[in-house]
Amino acid sequence: MLPKIHRNSLFTMSRIVTLLSDFGTQDAYVGAMKGTIAQINPAQAVIDVTHDIEPQNIAQARFVLMNAFPYFPRGTVHVAVVDPGVGSARRGVAIVIGDSSTESIGVLVGPDNGLFGGILEQYPILAAVELNQFCYWRIPQPSHTFHGRDIFAPVGAHLANGVELDQVGTAIAPESLKRLALPPLVYTENEITGSIQAIDRFGNLVTTIPAAVVANQQWSVELEEYSLPGLTTYSDRSPGTPVALIGSHGWVEIAIVNGNAQQFFNLQIGDTIKIQTDEF
Amino acid sequence: MLPKIHRNSLFTMSRIVTLLSDFGTQDAYVGAMKGTIAQINPAQAVIDVTHDIEPQNIAQARFVLMNAFPYFPRGTVHVAVVDPGVGSARRGVAIVIGDSSTESIGVLVGPDNGLFGGILEQYPILAAVELNQFCYWRIPQPSHTFHGRDIFAPVGAHLANGVELDQVGTAIAPESLKRLALPPLVYTENEITGSIQAIDRFGNLVTTIPAAVVANQQWSVELEEYSLPGLTTYSDRSPGTPVALIGSHGWVEIAIVNGNAQQFFNLQIGDTIKIQTDEF
Amino acid sequence: MLPKIHRNSLFTMSRIVTLLSDFGTQDAYVGAMKGTIAQINPAQAVIDVTHDIEPQNIAQARFVLMNAFPYFPRGTVHVAVVDPGVGSARRGVAIVIGDSSTESIGVLVGPDNGLFGGILEQYPILAAVELNQFCYWRIPQPSHTFHGRDIFAPVGAHLANGVELDQVGTAIAPESLKRLALPPLVYTENEITGSIQAIDRFGNLVTTIPAAVVANQQWSVELEEYSLPGLTTYSDRSPGTPVALIGSHGWVEIAIVNGNAQQFFNLQIGDTIKIQTDEF
Repeated sequence: MLPKIHRNSLFTMSRIVTLLSDFGTQDAYVGAMKGTIAQINPAQAVIDVTHDIEPQNIAQARFVLMNAFPYFPRGTVHVAVVDPGVGSARRGVAIVIGDSSTESIGVLVGPDNGLFGGILEQYPILAAVELNQFCYWRIPQPSHTFHGRDIFAPVGAHLANGVELDQVGTAIAPESLKRLALPPLVYTENEITGSIQAIDRFGNLVTTIPAAVVANQQWSVELEEYSLPGLTTYSDRSPGTPVALIGSHGWVEIAIVNGNAQQFFNLQIGDTIKIQTDEF
Repeated sequence: MLPKIHRNSLFTMSRIVTLLSDFGTQDAYVGAMKGTIAQINPAQAVIDVTHDIEPQNIAQARFVLMNAFPYFPRGTVHVAVVDPGVGSARRGVAIVIGDSSTESIGVLVGPDNGLFGGILEQYPILAAVELNQFCYWRIPQPSHTFHGRDIFAPVGAHLANGVELDQVGTAIAPESLKRLALPPLVYTENEITGSIQAIDRFGNLVTTIPAAVVANQQWSVELEEYSLPGLTTYSDRSPGTPVALIGSHGWVEIAIVNGNAQQFFNLQIGDTIKIQTDEF
Repeated sequence: MLPKIHRNSLFTMSRIVTLLSDFGTQDAYVGAMKGTIAQINPAQAVIDVTHDIEPQNIAQARFVLMNAFPYFPRGTVHVAVVDPGVGSARRGVAIVIGDSSTESIGVLVGPDNGLFGGILEQYPILAAVELNQFCYWRIPQPSHTFHGRDIFAPVGAHLANGVELDQVGTAIAPESLKRLALPPLVYTENEITGSIQAIDRFGNLVTTIPAAVVANQQWSVELEEYSLPGLTTYSDRSPGTPVALIGSHGWVEIAIVNGNAQQFFNLQIGDTIKIQTDEF
């Protein structure tokens, strides 16, 4: 039996729904999702995380959602739809994420394809269900190609409205949820080898190396002919200088002061990055 | 005399204003429209359908608005501004759209240039007015180039606020409203010839052939050397395969599983698409 | 001592927060700012002016914010973050903008790097503070690279929530605020020389010459082999014709009827524009 989720601890009075997708903003897809939510609750607050995920790039969606997640109020319902498997047997899921006190800090709704993996690795899962209660869908026979509109957005709106998790689906084992793990870091005597996991609008290269790994020590990124000592801010150096620092998301980043590191180094997602440290 | 529009049947308590335009998101245009609405009602809920219509592409605007329209709550006011004729003699209009019960399901506000044509073809028109009551405009002498900010957004906000249709303008004949008709389908013995009416962010090719035309029969799209049987989901086939199916908007679509059909077939809006069917 | 700002005159009940940045919409940055605001007030109304300012283009941000500002309700809090100096010694500021009656018409929050300059030149400054009260920040030790999330968005949300200006920082002299002045116009006998200060999505060329300078007289833009008489609307001429007119932002603009003037004339921001007038 699914553990009882106390409504008062799960949701505040002003529960927010966020949307993340690869639908872009030029078509009717995002409007259709928001209209569907408004049909359930015209006063529902909806915040876009982004709709500009590259088409079907689950790894990018995983990274962006993971980085936005901690800044939202408790009880926020995050509907995320990057869904190359729509219409296949992949499950739709809703997941309640907790913290060390096992109190809910957020709810995830979307396809079970790994896009929630970054959050699932960092927080306890309080409960998860497979979505199969079509009375909370837009229509009992959803489109085969647009579950964002027909299943995920309406289920998210109903959850934000106070519907309980066990009403929208059947409990599933948290460990069965799909994750997209980052490639593991490789440690040698005084070197850590990671890779680039994301590149932002400014061309900053976000590595897979978290701040905790280089905390309380000297460190530098070794890249081509450069040895970039770990700094605390872009502005310690003059414009055009390559620098390494802990970015705002909490990962080692490589940047060019007032410039674009992707263009400067011509690197891509997945490329190897090495860090030297004083000691481990 | 204009038929009395009962406020309770027209509007729910939480009337929404949607915005659609070709203003893009880099300039101050959208912010100015939203600020103008907020000056009328700071609590007004506003949902963007899109602002990324190609500059002055009325046909694209017509397609996107038509596809988003049915998902919004009754009483929603849709302000749409793709307006190459701004400052000329083209009329500004507000239109109440009904359904078979002749109850309002939505209100359209914008230039009378055909961008509402897709909706006008599908639903009864309950009433229409030409906008000429400048007390509901931002200023009595509007800009010659930005009626979105000075006329359409404020009129939309006032209508959402409960102002009656006949207060904002003078009744006009519904049949005088401009429409942009799709080119008619051509039927031969077991073939239907339509064309591509839209291409979405994923490169899916949306045809002018509605689902109803191929319902309850076998059908296939005949395209170059391919014969693409009508499927029910992308995921019946392996990635990279061209498929034909009923898309989420209710039209025959051509797609590549996890790929981009526009790039694959190198087709454009207006190109011919032929469907073979078993029987009519 | 800072002048007392009366809450009732400064703020309406439904104070809005606007956001302007160069963060783009593909990353988690905007979502993180909005989540941070929602953690302070889940019911806070937030309107995006734009997030598509070119990375670190303070002049473009100055232009867009100046043009959106006058359309928002009194008491609106504008949070603007184009911040190449983040992490350096540049100040964070909050500024109360007034009008001739010295009543507040808006509040600006962001880095003191000139991006508010266009507004500061047009309106009286009622009060300004340097942000240094970290109890109104997201965390006492903000990120070195993302003050939008950690300082400016939360301070803006608190001000919208009714916190007084003198609680969030220490008073500074309005004349010490950084401005980015436009290059001055050059007047000769019957010619005014300005330049292009902005180019919008439609390719319209917005000059530095305000409408007031050409009011109540004949004028024309002299550009290459063209002499473009000042018109009142795009639609006086046939498609493809270059025209000069007063744009919706109140500046002399050069446009192509239903076309793109930037591509037609191949001009850039900063390029010289000359106007001939009958008399001064």
